[in-house]
Amino acid sequence: MVTTIPHWLLKQAELNPEETAIEMDDGITLSYQELHKESLRYAAYFEKSGVKKGDHVAVLSSNRIEMPVVIHSLSYIGAVIVLLNTRLTAKELTFQLQDAEITLMVTEPDFNSVAGEAAHRAGLSQDKIVEYQEIQPEEVRPTYMQTEINLGDLFTIMYTSGTTGNPKGVQLTYGNHWASAVSSALNLGLSPFEKWLVCLPMFHVSGFSALIKNVVYGMPIFLMQRFEEKAVIKAIRQTGVTMLSAVSVMLQRMIGELGGEQLPHHFRGVLLGGGPAPKPLLEKAKEKKIPAFQTYGMTETASQIVTLNPKDALRKLGSAGKPLSTASLKIDAAVGEVGEIIVKGPMVTTGYFKREEATEEVMSEDGWLATGDLGYLDEEGFLFVVDRRKDLIISGGENIYPAEIESVLAGMEGVREAGVTGIKDENWGQVPVAFIVADTNGAIREEDVLQFCNSELAKYKCPKEIHFVDQLPRNASNKLMRRELLCLRKVDGDKG
Amino acid sequence: MVTTIPHWLLKQAELNPEETAIEMDDGITLSYQELHKESLRYAAYFEKSGVKKGDHVAVLSSNRIEMPVVIHSLSYIGAVIVLLNTRLTAKELTFQLQDAEITLMVTEPDFNSVAGEAAHRAGLSQDKIVEYQEIQPEEVRPTYMQTEINLGDLFTIMYTSGTTGNPKGVQLTYGNHWASAVSSALNLGLSPFEKWLVCLPMFHVSGFSALIKNVVYGMPIFLMQRFEEKAVIKAIRQTGVTMLSAVSVMLQRMIGELGGEQLPHHFRGVLLGGGPAPKPLLEKAKEKKIPAFQTYGMTETASQIVTLNPKDALRKLGSAGKPLSTASLKIDAAVGEVGEIIVKGPMVTTGYFKREEATEEVMSEDGWLATGDLGYLDEEGFLFVVDRRKDLIISGGENIYPAEIESVLAGMEGVREAGVTGIKDENWGQVPVAFIVADTNGAIREEDVLQFCNSELAKYKCPKEIHFVDQLPRNASNKLMRRELLCLRKVDGDKG
Repeated sequence: MVTTIPHWLLKQAELNPEETAIEMDDGITLSYQELHKESLRYAAYFEKSGVKKGDHVAVLSSNRIEMPVVIHSLSYIGAVIVLLNTRLTAKELTFQLQDAEITLMVTEPDFNSVAGEAAHRAGLSQDKIVEYQEIQPEEVRPTYMQTEINLGDLFTIMYTSGTTGNPKGVQLTYGNHWASAVSSALNLGLSPFEKWLVCLPMFHVSGFSALIKNVVYGMPIFLMQRFEEKAVIKAIRQTGVTMLSAVSVMLQRMIGELGGEQLPHHFRGVLLGGGPAPKPLLEKAKEKKIPAFQTYGMTETASQIVTLNPKDALRKLGSAGKPLSTASLKIDAAVGEVGEIIVKGPMVTTGYFKREEATEEVMSEDGWLATGDLGYLDEEGFLFVVDRRKDLIISGGENIYPAEIESVLAGMEGVREAGVTGIKDENWGQVPVAFIVADTNGAIREEDVLQFCNSELAKYKCPKEIHFVDQLPRNASNKLMRRELLCLRKVDGDKG
Repeated sequence: MVTTIPHWLLKQAELNPEETAIEMDDGITLSYQELHKESLRYAAYFEKSGVKKGDHVAVLSSNRIEMPVVIHSLSYIGAVIVLLNTRLTAKELTFQLQDAEITLMVTEPDFNSVAGEAAHRAGLSQDKIVEYQEIQPEEVRPTYMQTEINLGDLFTIMYTSGTTGNPKGVQLTYGNHWASAVSSALNLGLSPFEKWLVCLPMFHVSGFSALIKNVVYGMPIFLMQRFEEKAVIKAIRQTGVTMLSAVSVMLQRMIGELGGEQLPHHFRGVLLGGGPAPKPLLEKAKEKKIPAFQTYGMTETASQIVTLNPKDALRKLGSAGKPLSTASLKIDAAVGEVGEIIVKGPMVTTGYFKREEATEEVMSEDGWLATGDLGYLDEEGFLFVVDRRKDLIISGGENIYPAEIESVLAGMEGVREAGVTGIKDENWGQVPVAFIVADTNGAIREEDVLQFCNSELAKYKCPKEIHFVDQLPRNASNKLMRRELLCLRKVDGDKG
């Protein structure tokens, strides 16, 4: 069985040399030919710097144009790319540099100080940190070049943080990323006019996967340094963007910004990840005629593995859809009951780097991955994700899903965002508490919120405390970090 | 590396249960759910009849609705499907039944007699021939069912006839067929409204590949028993057909039938295979605004491996395009020169069944297949197929490509179809002779044709004989069989 394909960027440079590959919000554009040539020049530089096939090279970068070039250049010489989160502290970076056995780190001037400190602590000499402006592209081809991709080869390592212990490096092969891109096209279709907007960080799998679609489909991407609702709406209107990957809060801000206006017809929709979306938000999107396709996925599945098909988007509001055509899903519970979501498919990781035990804990020998997420299937086989298992609140023996309460709160007039988590309780074991960002337009009182909850939720699900906060803790992809909510509670308590 | 995917029909029955899978020209339609259930019932019957995983089962069938059901049912129980050409004689069938180690043959009443004779000669007992009407679908599931497809497993064997020696059984795995379908979607795009018309026989790889797209994309197909220009045009107009696979003569007849009219806008185009198309035909199609995408492929590559992209279709008229994004191509000659076309990709066969030597003759260890076809690449890397190497005429040391002469003849007023081949000649070694089907509208004389050729072709390329015939020999896919042209010459000579 042949499991090699031509290198995807080399191929697009042959198939679509003059077509736009990447368009930046600052006006820079690169055609496939240019992206390929620039990547080759970088590749020759990295090779000269001593990078060899199989070496682990860290990339610590925001969404700058250099980032895809560096990624493709490292891929051309067969290096494994370790994507680092730009929000990490020097201490956190140190662990990942050591754990991933990094031999070279590529970064940008902005992260100069933290990168330097982390490298020092990790025992990486300073000449093994390369900042973008120090790269001197060579005018020759690298002596070794991967003109073919072996789908079984390791391509990226991205770290995920567990509830306990150290982060784990998720290994993804070229085949994982390829299967993800192909499966998404089979699900969403692929028009000749497709253009994806990327405003999620490319060091996370969601942003990174758009970079792969870019070279697997020969589809242009519009790359933004960060999410900003005005700029995203402008880009959709003016540059022919057809698709956008986003998390709930981003969609919410776009809807707020749009006011009474709509998005143009060429815009096909928002691929909505990062946890179950509040139903009121999905209903608002429906009102605004913004197709929002809920997806479910994680680093371990190279992004989406379950996606709501456009044709079912309105009929199955709130569902994450069905597993992509190459993937399988089962729930570790009786039919209709909530249980752990277990998935399989060619996009699923081969395991955690150097963590045999952690890998065996969640993966079976025949490739099934226990996700740690809870969900159920309806009678038609649509997946409803209820929550992360680790976020589950158990109160007096009852299961409480923070996402359910957040969804109710998000539907209340005057509430902009809400986050819920559990605190210890003498009587019930745990009870839910809520953190609310109020709308700027009107005041909203604790008793209003409690009364609203009493009318919408069973008594045991009603939050026992309401904390008004300025903002909720979110990660670089704007995903709510429930574990950090309790820090706000202390601050709030201190104030009160 | 996970190389299994959920069984594609089972998957579509989950994803799109109520959607139309197959629509027949006689009005029968099957949804994915129905196709799945019927295939399961057939599978249980075949299992009861003794078919086991790995058994080789022959299917001798025209494009009837039972054919896809039988194919999927055999796939559900893991049997290998040997597709037999319905035009074969009992003697030819006998060889294939024996060579492919057939344990059961499924056929339709029309082929009762030839199937019976072939089975008898091949030593297959009469109870191992099952006609469609004898199948008694079981109301239970088969005890063994392949809910997953292992992409490395052998799926089909189809025979190709070489110039010398016995036909060879081309083995294609599930992975070959899957990669073919996926690569085609990445090239042509995939709209949510896609619908493919299948009028080429499903026992050939071109028709069969549409059956695979049907279950890999979840895209409906419109199935016709045979090509008939009026019916095809009607189907395109009335049933929302967007794509059609065809060979040159079919497109030519459609254009003739259309007269001054056009095809509706929803029709995206004709995927044109079966050898290089005459340029005058492509120009006529352009005039009629029928997008015609030349493709290049063969049984060994699970259908197309090189296809002209819609966006280059008019600019590169006459080219077969570039290799699909998962495939590679090289020409065994200097740049710009004509040489043998050599291809590689995940859709390329693993080899000929039980023919190690024949396999080694055309395939290298790293997966390159020498196709036996001649072509060249232009400066932008577009492939121009000039001819089958075996059809090449060598005259006084000059290479003459029959396809080139046919293309010129097809452009002459009064000529409907033309076929060219070589005959032995004392002086030159070989010389070209032409066979012409004249237009019904006007008389056309031998001297007119010769004069036309003299004005359009170098002297050594001008046919030395012109034979007017009623029709050209074509195979079941309407592909011109040049080797059989000489039989017409004899008949013609007898008459004269």
